[in-house]
Amino acid sequence: MSMDASGEELSDLEVENGVKHCGFEDEPETIAIMDAVKVLLQGLGEDINREGIKKTPLRVAKALREGTRGYGQTANEIIQSALFPEDGLHKGVGQAGGAGGIVIVRDIDFFSYCESCLLPFQVKCHVGYVPSGQRVVGLSKLSRVADVFAKRLQKPQRLADQICSALQHGIKPGGVAVVLHCLHTHFPSLESFFLDSKSPGWVKVLVQSGSGAFESQDADIWMDFFSLLKFRGTYPSKAGASDSNAQHWCPSQFSSASKFSTKPEPLNLKMTTAVTSILRSLGEDPSRKELLGTPGHFVNWLMSFQNCNVEMKMDMNKLNGFANGRNHFDHNENSNLSEKQIQSQMNFLFWSQCEHHLLPFYGVVHIGFIRDDGLTPLEKSLLNSVIHFYGFKLQVQERMTRQIAEMVSSLLGTDVIVVVEGSHTCMISRGIEKFGSTTATIAALGRFSSDAAARSMFLQSIPQTTIGEL
Amino acid sequence: MSMDASGEELSDLEVENGVKHCGFEDEPETIAIMDAVKVLLQGLGEDINREGIKKTPLRVAKALREGTRGYGQTANEIIQSALFPEDGLHKGVGQAGGAGGIVIVRDIDFFSYCESCLLPFQVKCHVGYVPSGQRVVGLSKLSRVADVFAKRLQKPQRLADQICSALQHGIKPGGVAVVLHCLHTHFPSLESFFLDSKSPGWVKVLVQSGSGAFESQDADIWMDFFSLLKFRGTYPSKAGASDSNAQHWCPSQFSSASKFSTKPEPLNLKMTTAVTSILRSLGEDPSRKELLGTPGHFVNWLMSFQNCNVEMKMDMNKLNGFANGRNHFDHNENSNLSEKQIQSQMNFLFWSQCEHHLLPFYGVVHIGFIRDDGLTPLEKSLLNSVIHFYGFKLQVQERMTRQIAEMVSSLLGTDVIVVVEGSHTCMISRGIEKFGSTTATIAALGRFSSDAAARSMFLQSIPQTTIGEL
Repeated sequence: MSMDASGEELSDLEVENGVKHCGFEDEPETIAIMDAVKVLLQGLGEDINREGIKKTPLRVAKALREGTRGYGQTANEIIQSALFPEDGLHKGVGQAGGAGGIVIVRDIDFFSYCESCLLPFQVKCHVGYVPSGQRVVGLSKLSRVADVFAKRLQKPQRLADQICSALQHGIKPGGVAVVLHCLHTHFPSLESFFLDSKSPGWVKVLVQSGSGAFESQDADIWMDFFSLLKFRGTYPSKAGASDSNAQHWCPSQFSSASKFSTKPEPLNLKMTTAVTSILRSLGEDPSRKELLGTPGHFVNWLMSFQNCNVEMKMDMNKLNGFANGRNHFDHNENSNLSEKQIQSQMNFLFWSQCEHHLLPFYGVVHIGFIRDDGLTPLEKSLLNSVIHFYGFKLQVQERMTRQIAEMVSSLLGTDVIVVVEGSHTCMISRGIEKFGSTTATIAALGRFSSDAAARSMFLQSIPQTTIGEL
Repeated sequence: MSMDASGEELSDLEVENGVKHCGFEDEPETIAIMDAVKVLLQGLGEDINREGIKKTPLRVAKALREGTRGYGQTANEIIQSALFPEDGLHKGVGQAGGAGGIVIVRDIDFFSYCESCLLPFQVKCHVGYVPSGQRVVGLSKLSRVADVFAKRLQKPQRLADQICSALQHGIKPGGVAVVLHCLHTHFPSLESFFLDSKSPGWVKVLVQSGSGAFESQDADIWMDFFSLLKFRGTYPSKAGASDSNAQHWCPSQFSSASKFSTKPEPLNLKMTTAVTSILRSLGEDPSRKELLGTPGHFVNWLMSFQNCNVEMKMDMNKLNGFANGRNHFDHNENSNLSEKQIQSQMNFLFWSQCEHHLLPFYGVVHIGFIRDDGLTPLEKSLLNSVIHFYGFKLQVQERMTRQIAEMVSSLLGTDVIVVVEGSHTCMISRGIEKFGSTTATIAALGRFSSDAAARSMFLQSIPQTTIGEL
């Protein structure tokens, strides 16, 4: 594993097979993005020399440039390198799959960057084509071609159309079908968290694109295709149109833009100018129609994680009033569990922003504590406040878990256990692309740190959840 | 996308960020592996100049060298580059997760190469550690460190131990826990297919490794760890030992070695010598104890896919006898579906070997046909024979689907539809690593090619299956 000048290792991908690194950090595009990220961090009220974030500008530059590398790639060359003659035993059949045959590769996971807000979104991709001209394409190339277009600033319908068109022109088959399940994070707002803690964290759209035999959305062959996708049974048996909301799916387009604009105007201008510079460094044209609002959207997203806006995030008066009034609780450490019960509050939603990569992480918080009476509604809303106070800032999950535990302990008593289950966008995007991986962290204070049985009782009661999967 | 001299595209990974390719194909290790693969292809009875396989030696060399790149990597540098100070608000707590805290990254998918047979196996990895010394490691590094050791010739327990040890020494935490779910293909034998078509296609083992607080398998902290893994509830609540069969899990070690040794001895010697040369080219010592049997195991595996051994694969007399006697069937094309019913036979298991990468693919075959009487047991066994005749050779799924359809059509009548659902090892190993992706192919002959309703009726009736998932 090679090291670069900053001590940051190069990704495994860059040094394999004797491949050499070519001064990525010194390239003007990288430097421009790093400078822009520093402006954004300062706009968030962060100290850019703080240990946890001092390499964040470099990490963000690497992630963004890797994540948009598709601008420099050409799908057709990928396809041409892996077209295999497949005339078969019976020349008369003429198609590799036999008459009416389709080849479908299902459930290809990848991510793309939303052109409207610059956040990554997840894609589950299904590609099909009807071989003709007595040739087939290597199966992995369907995935590689999809990736070429995913690694650009995108919206779902255009992504599907571009994949479809590239395969149609490259393979020249009887037809091509592309179906994408896309999953975009909601823009969390504090209001929505307090009004509706059950609000789904995701915007989901399904888009499709077809050419040749799949050109018409009414073609029977769409039925064959959908029959063989794993979600058959839930999807209408006849191929329908793409989701009508796919054009305006990004929550940035319908969130109230002024919600988080608490900073004075000049600073926001500096931040949006920085994002415009990032777009240009990625090889995009910031004056392209779809990108005009992007800098503002991204800054709005970021500003919901600005540091120090305590007043906005939780009602501190409520908190203080509660803390002052709670001295009636019994703190006898020697009482046993039959007197005091383990109470648990499961599945608080949280949102946060990874300070290492400026990418969201999100999931659920479970809180356990020992006492002999139940929580009041006031206390539940208080726990929610504590979670969002520590969530809505640049964070790491480990620290957030400890901070929530310590705060809850100071409010409800010393015996507290907190479990956070999070999905990290930085684990699915960048070079790592580990879809389905989740992170769990535990902080156990008081009796929970020493009493394995109490800890185990709480941990075993945590419900099975799936976080952020399609 | 750059092209190399052979017209094979470079993987996306090699050209990103201006990274240049450094003559991979001209390196002596690559040339030696390519030469060895040619020997293996010839031993299988293949024409190495056939269009579909003429670049297979290069593809295999790339896959193997990429898949064992871990020999050239050092885990400690990865860790040191991403240790973050995390002293938190309350110094007294001393651990990032709070007292008793654990950080767990769950469900990391990757693959490794089995040192006993040289085939890739799937791994679902769960890593946990107890932060101490007021520092945490970047979450993605747990995955990257696991990958360093996975990209070598491995067996499950050593892989778990090496990941655990590297993290313990690199992070110096309170403890490290590693749990691996490993999934290895069975070695298909024709006998087992005919005796027991329900035989599970997989060997599964669970191994664990612990250090520090996790050193003892009886430590309470293992309970915390397992409570937070997704398979809790199915796994014993108290951490057990690793699967006792993990040491000898590779089916090559208990398959009868002589089963497929139908070729004269000198050829097998030439083939095993070629595999030994591959091991050496990957940087391994072929005289290492665990590798002594590997060339023989790999050749045995390959030889089950040798071309032209028809007699071994199906009872041709049975087939010919059946075909000659079947002229009593009614072939009136104009009869309607109320007279003739769509019959279907679902979920025949198949195994095959991808001719592009010399890697297995496997899954299920579904067959539909139109006639007014049911299948006899003889016919079911015949369909099984046809599937394995076309499966047990170097193949592509598209061709296999068509060949099965055409043969079944000649046996049972012209109206035949065949669907193959396959998992391709070449889609999870190599650079592509698309876990969970599957490929479906359709061949529709006779009425099924023109009658969308009949086709749809059959396709909708295919049961939901999950192929090759952990």
